Amino acid sequence: MTSFDELVRHFERFPGIGPRQARRFVYHLLTEDPQSLRALADAIADVQAKVTECAHCFRYFARDNGNTLCEICNDANRNHELLMVVERDSDIPPIERSGIYDGYYFVLGGTVPLLEPQENIKLRGGALKGIAEMRAKEGLAEVILAFSVNPDGENTARYVGTLLKETEEKNIKISTLGRGLSTGSELEYADPETIKNALKNRT
Amino acid sequence: MTSFDELVRHFERFPGIGPRQARRFVYHLLTEDPQSLRALADAIADVQAKVTECAHCFRYFARDNGNTLCEICNDANRNHELLMVVERDSDIPPIERSGIYDGYYFVLGGTVPLLEPQENIKLRGGALKGIAEMRAKEGLAEVILAFSVNPDGENTARYVGTLLKETEEKNIKISTLGRGLSTGSELEYADPETIKNALKNRT
Amino acid sequence: MTSFDELVRHFERFPGIGPRQARRFVYHLLTEDPQSLRALADAIADVQAKVTECAHCFRYFARDNGNTLCEICNDANRNHELLMVVERDSDIPPIERSGIYDGYYFVLGGTVPLLEPQENIKLRGGALKGIAEMRAKEGLAEVILAFSVNPDGENTARYVGTLLKETEEKNIKISTLGRGLSTGSELEYADPETIKNALKNRT
Amino acid sequence: MTSFDELVRHFERFPGIGPRQARRFVYHLLTEDPQSLRALADAIADVQAKVTECAHCFRYFARDNGNTLCEICNDANRNHELLMVVERDSDIPPIERSGIYDGYYFVLGGTVPLLEPQENIKLRGGALKGIAEMRAKEGLAEVILAFSVNPDGENTARYVGTLLKETEEKNIKISTLGRGLSTGSELEYADPETIKNALKNRT
Repeated sequence: MTSFDELVRHFERFPGIGPRQARRFVYHLLTEDPQSLRALADAIADVQAKVTECAHCFRYFARDNGNTLCEICNDANRNHELLMVVERDSDIPPIERSGIYDGYYFVLGGTVPLLEPQENIKLRGGALKGIAEMRAKEGLAEVILAFSVNPDGENTARYVGTLLKETEEKNIKISTLGRGLSTGSELEYADPETIKNALKNRT
Repeated sequence: MTSFDELVRHFERFPGIGPRQARRFVYHLLTEDPQSLRALADAIADVQAKVTECAHCFRYFARDNGNTLCEICNDANRNHELLMVVERDSDIPPIERSGIYDGYYFVLGGTVPLLEPQENIKLRGGALKGIAEMRAKEGLAEVILAFSVNPDGENTARYVGTLLKETEEKNIKISTLGRGLSTGSELEYADPETIKNALKNRT
Repeated sequence: MTSFDELVRHFERFPGIGPRQARRFVYHLLTEDPQSLRALADAIADVQAKVTECAHCFRYFARDNGNTLCEICNDANRNHELLMVVERDSDIPPIERSGIYDGYYFVLGGTVPLLEPQENIKLRGGALKGIAEMRAKEGLAEVILAFSVNPDGENTARYVGTLLKETEEKNIKISTLGRGLSTGSELEYADPETIKNALKNRT
Repeated sequence: MTSFDELVRHFERFPGIGPRQARRFVYHLLTEDPQSLRALADAIADVQAKVTECAHCFRYFARDNGNTLCEICNDANRNHELLMVVERDSDIPPIERSGIYDGYYFVLGGTVPLLEPQENIKLRGGALKGIAEMRAKEGLAEVILAFSVNPDGENTARYVGTLLKETEEKNIKISTLGRGLSTGSELEYADPETIKNALKNRT
């Protein structure tokens, strides 16, 4: 296999990239200046050494000085009463940008698909229990399950809820994000479940 | 202008229909059997006589026997404490289908666009005040403003809220539908306002 | 069934219209001024009487004074050597607008789907043979088969080609529209058949 | 800037990739096994050394043994009478796959936008003249201009046509790909230029 084809093969494994775009990526690299290409290769080679999972929340962060905790978990000024469990790393930036949440996070690492319940073994359920117990000693009062509003997300919430009830910490409340009309919703196109929640949560 | 072109012109005025689809509609009519065509023409000619606005909620309903009220306003068993104000007729069926609301409705007849506040004169603001005062005597406790979650919808809610405060009925609560994650929402793509409401309304 | 629902039912039969848009059409009619509504109903009731199929080409035209031929078939100055067979009425306007064709037309009335060859009985094959023989006496030299470039269109071309060979007129050439790159085509996305034809027809 | 952000920045420069997908790429790399990551980094670092432009046609090819010509230019059995000028590398695979062309290629390296004619200096116009003169001695009879069918493509064809007329080789024909209906075209939606060419090229 040529170097060209080998690179195409690598890029085809990138999320959302098909053969044609993979080829375009290689053409792009061929026209880059050599210095920039070298920098990209080095960055890729180094990324796993320089970016690591936080020992508490499991999101990726840049380990610059032997830190084992990310800047959020390291920040003692955040609200110790709240822990939000999300599906994946990329769920965190929009919440931080909203500026309304100041508790801690935990990245579960995926969902438990409704039709493949055995997938739960790939998730960080055990670690979550440990972290919840640890944070309980620091004042944790509520775990917020922040999953997608679809069957897999709801199944994951059930799974995590059950899991957390197995801990010794009986006083921790388990909540889920509120449902209702989201920005841009039009009543005419809303589904019954959303209408039901929008009515129930009216203010 | 030929009969063909005249029909095309009529259909071009239908909501969402361009010249090409308008022509298709005419070709469709040309291949219909004459009896069905006659029935369509009659139904169109009669629709304004047979379908009329309800004297209370202003939605359209089939007037079969001199009724001035639609079947919802005519139903004394519904919840007299609730009145939901919607933008247009077509907002009502999804709410009825959700099976969770059993109060009455009021069709405002449009929105007050943020940039064209003078549009409020086209709406049924005066009639709404009258209906609210009438229903207050029958036990009305809450008016639910059920508009789209966008700038025009929110502006309309402000307008209607102010309007209702002008009535004598000070004990009527004015509420809006709850906001949060709607069915199908993914956290990663949620906007700050939706995240904020989802957090606030967590349960 | 109410008048409203009856109209919805009619509009749902319009090409490309689903239940929701059908309802919108009825709401639109309810807000039209009564005179315009009356005019629409009359136009629909009259359209089949006022618009009729041309006795030669079978396209629809406005019969204002007992004419049996449309304005194209009636125009003796067009090119008697050419007859173009199209699938449906709506194929003719773009060709006329191109300003490059001055022969006559014949509307076949559909295609012969590759998987349902028996559908050919719904088409105007017999009439086409008659018209071709009639026009042969007036100098017809070529029949152009102008169907869509897809399996059904190509199957229809085969069917019509065979049909025309059954006539007595052996000197009439049967042609199909040229293939190649159409406006907006990019080489990178072209299919092999198009590339093949583009190369063969290079100029 | 962290290693993570630096990689995001690199990927954002990839064609068609926005910030969100760039971040996904980095998450993908973080979960790859280290060996595969190393291989990707090496392939990127090496690609410019291992893949080079063909000295004749300028497309990229894998230089495994000091070759200066790609496998097509190196193949003496191809048709020496034909040279096809394309805009970019990625135009060649679909033509090769069509299996109908056996001449040589020349990658111009871009287009001359109608509104920025000075862009022609970025193209390989001079090299094309040299190659045409060289191939003329080997029997070149026709240069096929194979550009996109849009204003920029047509402008580029004019530019290259003028350029080639400046060479000494007066006997070389200059052609462009044939136009007409491409696969999937429907007459009703065809533009006048395509209809005109489809009629002119009818067969």
